[in-house]
Amino acid sequence: MSEFELIRRYFQPLDRSVRDGDGDGVDLGIGDDCALMQAPAGHQLAMSIDTLVEGVHFLADTDIARLGHKALAVNLSDLAAMGAQPLWYMLGLTLPKPDAQWLQFFSQGLSELASRAGIRLIGGDTTRGPCSITIQVTGSVPAGYALRRDGAKPGDDVYVSGVLGQGGLGLLVRQHQARDEIARDPFDPLGGAADTCSREWVDKLETPMPRLTLGAALRGIATACIDISDGFLQDLQHVLTASAVGACLDIDSLPVVSWNKPYAVLSARLSDPPGWRDYCLQCGDDYELCFTAPTSERARIDALAMRLDIRVTRVGQITEQPGLCTLGGKPVAPGGYQHF
Amino acid sequence: MSEFELIRRYFQPLDRSVRDGDGDGVDLGIGDDCALMQAPAGHQLAMSIDTLVEGVHFLADTDIARLGHKALAVNLSDLAAMGAQPLWYMLGLTLPKPDAQWLQFFSQGLSELASRAGIRLIGGDTTRGPCSITIQVTGSVPAGYALRRDGAKPGDDVYVSGVLGQGGLGLLVRQHQARDEIARDPFDPLGGAADTCSREWVDKLETPMPRLTLGAALRGIATACIDISDGFLQDLQHVLTASAVGACLDIDSLPVVSWNKPYAVLSARLSDPPGWRDYCLQCGDDYELCFTAPTSERARIDALAMRLDIRVTRVGQITEQPGLCTLGGKPVAPGGYQHF
Repeated sequence: MSEFELIRRYFQPLDRSVRDGDGDGVDLGIGDDCALMQAPAGHQLAMSIDTLVEGVHFLADTDIARLGHKALAVNLSDLAAMGAQPLWYMLGLTLPKPDAQWLQFFSQGLSELASRAGIRLIGGDTTRGPCSITIQVTGSVPAGYALRRDGAKPGDDVYVSGVLGQGGLGLLVRQHQARDEIARDPFDPLGGAADTCSREWVDKLETPMPRLTLGAALRGIATACIDISDGFLQDLQHVLTASAVGACLDIDSLPVVSWNKPYAVLSARLSDPPGWRDYCLQCGDDYELCFTAPTSERARIDALAMRLDIRVTRVGQITEQPGLCTLGGKPVAPGGYQHF
Repeated sequence: MSEFELIRRYFQPLDRSVRDGDGDGVDLGIGDDCALMQAPAGHQLAMSIDTLVEGVHFLADTDIARLGHKALAVNLSDLAAMGAQPLWYMLGLTLPKPDAQWLQFFSQGLSELASRAGIRLIGGDTTRGPCSITIQVTGSVPAGYALRRDGAKPGDDVYVSGVLGQGGLGLLVRQHQARDEIARDPFDPLGGAADTCSREWVDKLETPMPRLTLGAALRGIATACIDISDGFLQDLQHVLTASAVGACLDIDSLPVVSWNKPYAVLSARLSDPPGWRDYCLQCGDDYELCFTAPTSERARIDALAMRLDIRVTRVGQITEQPGLCTLGGKPVAPGGYQHF
């Protein structure tokens, strides 16, 4: 199968409009030296790029359709964090050999998420080499309304969406092939509930849903925003650094996975495992949003969380004093996080 | 060295305006979840992405600064082929380990070409894994003036810039570590000229200069255009297919490297080597432009070639009949090309 045949069969079908009504601005998609697009008037373009490497960002035995989903999802999560609407994406795909079944599943996973997110494939490059996937996304946001990292102000509330730790626990389950063991856990008082949980965590790891609607709804409300991909504490620290502020966290309010028994099973395999709560605040693959907003916006944020049916938790407050601390004033180290 | 430190030290300095006067539309560069840009009014955006993999697209012992140049150049060549002006680029860089010296040289090569081309780094992703480089470029072109592949009309002239075969010969020289041997060639009647030649070919392979000024000058003149990266015959065939036409080539007029003695030395190492001229028309890495234009544009094309000091050769004519043939009517196979 030549590169051209491969593109025609598996990727050309993804170059189609997935937006209703107003068009997607694509004048020329796959098949020329460049794609040609028109940017929406009165908007800024938001662009990001992310690479997933086999053995580093995903396990070699990952379901291929899920891999297609995730490769796009991690990029969409960056658009969500800016409050941007997805427009177009480009794919740089490197494979040891052109494997028809692999490509079939991969393009299917990609296509399904792209349709849901309203984003169109406009071009790419397929090359031979060790398996890796680079996706570049472009979105748009009304000019001046992007959610940047550098806008947090002292006194602002700090919020986080969803529940922290699910993706990280999913990774532990997958790395240790531990699902069967958890399912058989004789201490599981709920009879099978642990199995259901571990399945949900692996789903969160492998098929995260970027918080696009939440990001867009926060335009004009949030003062700063970031997506949580490297662990809540580390990513919050990026906001604090960019905004030249600090934050005081109500540690008990942080929405971590509540059922920690499976972690006891899993962490027994790690040398020097962090504590349960620490793990949830340090692990990656959450793809939730962490954002700040003035206290005057509390009612609007509660209302939009309810309308979107997304759990949004107020977890602390921005301070003038740099650094992270607990309500009691104890310092919190964003990296190691052993200082609690 | 953390990812953040690496970006700050080697890539943040490349996120600076390199355009005079009218600004580059970048509102927010490296350091947030996305970069934020404003597209120039009245223009279409042109976007492309290309990956270079170690051992596939470049030899492991390639000079690192040259690799930085080439990774950007192959993408700029796609912008040139559309007649687009470079605006912004994103970098997906995968390395086995963060090597300070490697990054120093790579970013230097990238930076030098970026400055010359007037394109700005707006973001990227650095990951651990087998060495590969993906660059995504965005350019702009006045709306409706992009040089596409699908506009060639029967009767149009076919042109090619530069000389074909230099990059491909450079690859042979590099692959076979043959420079010393060529320099010592006892049959070299010019005493050292072969060495100079082989050096030029390797330069063309490793530091090609994308034909950006030529591409831009051809807006409103050329009816179709493509950059020659996979060999002249194969790339011309893409234009013919997209335009649903054929072409008749004056084989003798094709501007191939004129001095074929070193090829005799090099091709002796290949099993079943193609003929000299065939090799030059099939080999990759030319990064010249192949374009079509109405016969009424001949004077303007001659004048702009002279003004830009770029060799531009008229090599044939577009035909209604699909396929490629010689002036004598003999078919030319674009792939194998053994049919001459």
